Amino acid sequence: MKTITIVKIGGNVIDDEEKLTKFLRDFALLIGTKILIHGGGKYATKLSQKLNIPQQIIDGRRVTNKETLLVTVMAYAGLINKQIVSTLQSFQCNALGLCGADGNIISATKRIVDKVDYGFVGDLHKDSFNIDFINRLLAMDISLVLCPITNSKEHGLLNTNADTITAQLAIALQKHYNVQLVYCFEKAGVLMDADKENTLINTLTEQEYKALKNTNAIHSGMIPKLDNIFTALNSGVSSIKLCSYSDLLNTEDTHVGTKFI
Amino acid sequence: MKTITIVKIGGNVIDDEEKLTKFLRDFALLIGTKILIHGGGKYATKLSQKLNIPQQIIDGRRVTNKETLLVTVMAYAGLINKQIVSTLQSFQCNALGLCGADGNIISATKRIVDKVDYGFVGDLHKDSFNIDFINRLLAMDISLVLCPITNSKEHGLLNTNADTITAQLAIALQKHYNVQLVYCFEKAGVLMDADKENTLINTLTEQEYKALKNTNAIHSGMIPKLDNIFTALNSGVSSIKLCSYSDLLNTEDTHVGTKFI
Repeated sequence: MKTITIVKIGGNVIDDEEKLTKFLRDFALLIGTKILIHGGGKYATKLSQKLNIPQQIIDGRRVTNKETLLVTVMAYAGLINKQIVSTLQSFQCNALGLCGADGNIISATKRIVDKVDYGFVGDLHKDSFNIDFINRLLAMDISLVLCPITNSKEHGLLNTNADTITAQLAIALQKHYNVQLVYCFEKAGVLMDADKENTLINTLTEQEYKALKNTNAIHSGMIPKLDNIFTALNSGVSSIKLCSYSDLLNTEDTHVGTKFI
Repeated sequence: MKTITIVKIGGNVIDDEEKLTKFLRDFALLIGTKILIHGGGKYATKLSQKLNIPQQIIDGRRVTNKETLLVTVMAYAGLINKQIVSTLQSFQCNALGLCGADGNIISATKRIVDKVDYGFVGDLHKDSFNIDFINRLLAMDISLVLCPITNSKEHGLLNTNADTITAQLAIALQKHYNVQLVYCFEKAGVLMDADKENTLINTLTEQEYKALKNTNAIHSGMIPKLDNIFTALNSGVSSIKLCSYSDLLNTEDTHVGTKFI
């Protein structure tokens, strides 16, 4: 079975040109079939503020109204995706940037309105990924760069969490490839103390994760990220690492990042 | 030889949701291999104004400074391209949106600074199009949607005129296909009097065009458009029509639009 490396880059790295360029130089050097999924960073929020689009947050989650959706499409599918692709081309990595509507590569259903209407938010379903098309593109020796904009034939473009797309794509592709899943961000991995880089946890089981969540050692933004990671692990994706954007070429090193077991 | 229809949609149609949707419904119904190239409309200018990015015009041409480039990338490669692709998917047309950096599909050279520095503007060269990749994608029964952002491995993303991309792509593809080239916009075709739709010129030779330019009957924005069209005609693209966005399915009708002979 062929190996594929699926890499998520997110957090503050997207907003920092120097860090992003270093990371992309390393991604270009990764050998073999590869897919990069990027988040949005803070650019969409900044752009919304500049355009005076009011941001509505309910229970800590952003509501994606029509205007906010258009800003995320511009920022994620336009600016960030195309700058990443152009930078990869400059590093001799033949990349292709896509949103979910392109070739119907990631379809989603608009989130059902329950107590809260989160607006134009897309949830993945079991046939979200156009695996046949993804395989045909990868067979052309092209690296795919996916942004977290999905598509519904009924509701159009939708905003979807990039960590979730990454985990679900890894699950969907493991029938076809030996999947190496790497989440990269600005920290060294899962930390016992989020402020201290030297408190890196090298291996983490789901039981240990639950215990650390209970004591509040792991909290806020790390929880949905780790929930996605353990969903992938529990669905059979056996090689998953969370590490610094600067360690992409060293993920085999047991001292680098957090491995999920 | 297989037939390909290359369609340019531009002008005010992009800014008018109702007209654009009607046009895209027709494009989805076009039979056979097809490529859509879109311009930017006025959205990028409006966005620049909202973001307080000063616009510099020299000799009637816009200077693309770094900030303006990023706005055009957001507007063209992000918002407009992805909304078109999503709308086409809703009409059961499997579309794929690309900028020039994607799969290195349209490379360009940054315009040389002569008297004026036009900034991040890309000029096409004889090997600008990645024909092999275009052919492989088209062979998958996918319709390509191209935005007028090109790429240079040295200078990154560049802004390029969509009419020029269209004409040059038609020229590059005629070795591989029987090319049908259609420029769609808000008017009925070339008009003797730009304000009167009933002054449509049904056929136009280059000699007649030059005469109409001399008498100022054809002027301003129509001149670069028609120059591109005659460049394509003189390079062997024999089927070229300029017509209304609402006539895309009737281009065979001799009473529709302007045919260049």
